[in-house]
Parts: sequence; structure tokens; C-alpha cells
Amino acid sequence: MIFSSRLIEDAVNQFAKLPGIGKKTALRLVLHLLKQEQSEVTIFSEAISRMRSEIRYCASCHNVSDQELCRLCSDTSRRKHQVCVVENIRDVMAIEATQQFSGLYHVLGGVISPLDGIGPDSLNIQSLIKRVEEKEIEELIFALSPTMEGDTTTYFITKRLDSHKIKLTAISRGVAFGGELEYTDELTLARSIQNRIPLEQVAMK
Amino acid sequence: MIFSSRLIEDAVNQFAKLPGIGKKTALRLVLHLLKQEQSEVTIFSEAISRMRSEIRYCASCHNVSDQELCRLCSDTSRRKHQVCVVENIRDVMAIEATQQFSGLYHVLGGVISPLDGIGPDSLNIQSLIKRVEEKEIEELIFALSPTMEGDTTTYFITKRLDSHKIKLTAISRGVAFGGELEYTDELTLARSIQNRIPLEQVAMK
Repeated sequence: MIFSSRLIEDAVNQFAKLPGIGKKTALRLVLHLLKQEQSEVTIFSEAISRMRSEIRYCASCHNVSDQELCRLCSDTSRRKHQVCVVENIRDVMAIEATQQFSGLYHVLGGVISPLDGIGPDSLNIQSLIKRVEEKEIEELIFALSPTMEGDTTTYFITKRLDSHKIKLTAISRGVAFGGELEYTDELTLARSIQNRIPLEQVAMK
Repeated sequence: MIFSSRLIEDAVNQFAKLPGIGKKTALRLVLHLLKQEQSEVTIFSEAISRMRSEIRYCASCHNVSDQELCRLCSDTSRRKHQVCVVENIRDVMAIEATQQFSGLYHVLGGVISPLDGIGPDSLNIQSLIKRVEEKEIEELIFALSPTMEGDTTTYFITKRLDSHKIKLTAISRGVAFGGELEYTDELTLARSIQNRIPLEQVAMK
């Protein structure tokens, strides 16, 4: 791509660094911004820059936050004895969108993955143990990826909590609602048969 | 979508204003930037902001430029007597990418479209007339959209140039190379039959 302006070229290259955005899309975005009022573009670039420089992480659950404690942790109406363990803040948002969970979260910041150099110390595991030890938590609900790394992480944390009387659960995995059996991958189908639930326990709505 | 931080929410909303980017993609981009070093994000936001505030337009062809004259207009090796009339700078880049044109450009900034409130005065038409009058231009090549608006614009400009002895051409339209006749839309096929070219004139490579 030949640019007649270095300013355009720089902006396109910056956009093209974002995931899922190629040079052509980047150019389309840049040309769109070029047509906007300068004040609009300033608002855009400042929102991005402020987001990164002023963001804080909740001292309790490590969710993103504007305050010391995030909106969820400081919400007194939520059930403080239930904590859902997730990998990242996107998972928090996905679960919040279901409106089915009114407990608190603990964002690990990833899962244990030795191949990627991510050990237990790179994650917010120590603070989770501390939370269990200090706060009145009755149940930890694990909602990590159903991968070897996710399972390893769940196993590692549960081992560390062996001495604590606490209910440990995991969100159920299986054939998606509306999913056709014949199109479900073998692993999912196999697991959902192994983890079958007595009919009277199935939550139906 | 429920955000636990207003900073994140602002940044997502800003990204979601860009064309083709919805809230989910915007969130993915924001979370990606959140994981980058702060200096990286500063470079990103400054490239966008500088691009809009420092951009200039070529005094001759209205292409984007860092100088008074753009890189193409100040290139002495290009044929100054051939000018290709295009709608926007993306068209300039598309034609430059073919490496088949070594003349200059004139960027109109759009086409005449009364329904959108775009009249001849909103476009860089007057400066094109002036260029034809003052410079030694022998040929104007119209490369506007093959729409009613594009055709109207071409007609309007050619009318204004009636008194000038200048060659007026338009890029050829028709079935794309590699395109199958049966899948070509009727209008394109009809036009490409009407505008058929004697075989000995067909440029082949």
C-alpha cells in the first residue's frame, strides 16, 4: 500500500496492529476518522489513552474498576459468600449479561500454562486463597476454559484449598441449548454423557 | 452490556462509532489495548490524534499530504498532462496500486448528490477547471462511480469544459477479469455489450 502522507501511514499501521484488523480495514477506519470533526477525533484518542493510563483493578476481585473496589464488590446487595472464579473480565461481563448470578467474582488473569510461561505466581491465585481464608466464602464456582490449562488451574486451586471447608463447583458443560446432537463435537457429547444429571435436578425454566 | 468501569465503557463506545465495528468487537479491541504497555497505547492514540490535526491537503490535487504539494504532484517524473479525476483518496491509492498510471490526480471529495445535499460547490470542481485553464493538461480521465451521481458529476464537469480543447476519457467498465459471464449482474453485462471495443483496440498483456 502506497500512502501519500506519513501521518496516514502511521495511523493505519497503528490500527492494523489491533487483532482482526488488516491494512484495508485500518485504512477504512482512518479515512472515516479523517472525515470527522477534529474535536470528535480528539475525544476518540483521549478515551483510548485515558482508559489505559487511568484504569485500576479492584483490590478484591481484580476486575477493572474506576475505584479501589469495583462496582460489583462494593454492591451490598450481592451475595458475598458465593465467588465465581473466571479467567478475565470478558468472562465477568458474559456471566453478568445472563443476570443469573448475584455473587462476586475473582478474576485470575488467565490460566496456568507452562508452555506460555504462565505459572501460578503470574495469576491472582494467592489473593483468591487469601480471600477464602479471610472472608466468609461458602462456595467457589469455577468457570474456567474446559481445556487442559483450565482443568490444571482448577485442580491447582482446589489442592491449595484442601484444608478449607468450602463448597467447590464448576459450571456445567455440555451440548448447548438449541444445539443439535449430531453437530456437537465428540468430546463435548462424551463429557455431557459422563456428567449426566438426574432429571429431577435439571434446572428448567 | 454492563461495564464495571466507565473508562472501559467510554473507550468501547468510541470504538463502536467506527464503521463496521460493533460493541463486541470494540470490547475485544479495548481489552487488547488494555493488555499493551502504556507507551504503546500512547503511540496509538497520538498517531490517530496527530493524523487528524496535522493532515494537509495538496494545494493542487487535494490528495492528503504532509507538504503543500503531495508526493505525486511534486514528483517530476510523472506525466503532468494527464489527470485522473477521482472521488476520494482511496481511489488514488487503488489506481496507484495498479502501477499502470503515471499521470496526476484530482480528488473531487465526492460526487454531486442533491439528495445528500452535495452540490458542485461542495466539491473540488472549481479548482479542477482552474487547473485545466492554467496548466498544460491534455487529457482528463474520469474514474468516478458508475452511478447516477457519478455520471451526473462527469456530465457537469465536461459541460464546464466545453470550450476547452481537451481529451476527455473514462475508465472502462465491464465484466471483471476472471469474472464469469453468468454471474455478472445484468446492468454490467448490458453496458459491456453496448461499450464493446474493436478487438484490435483491446489492450492485452
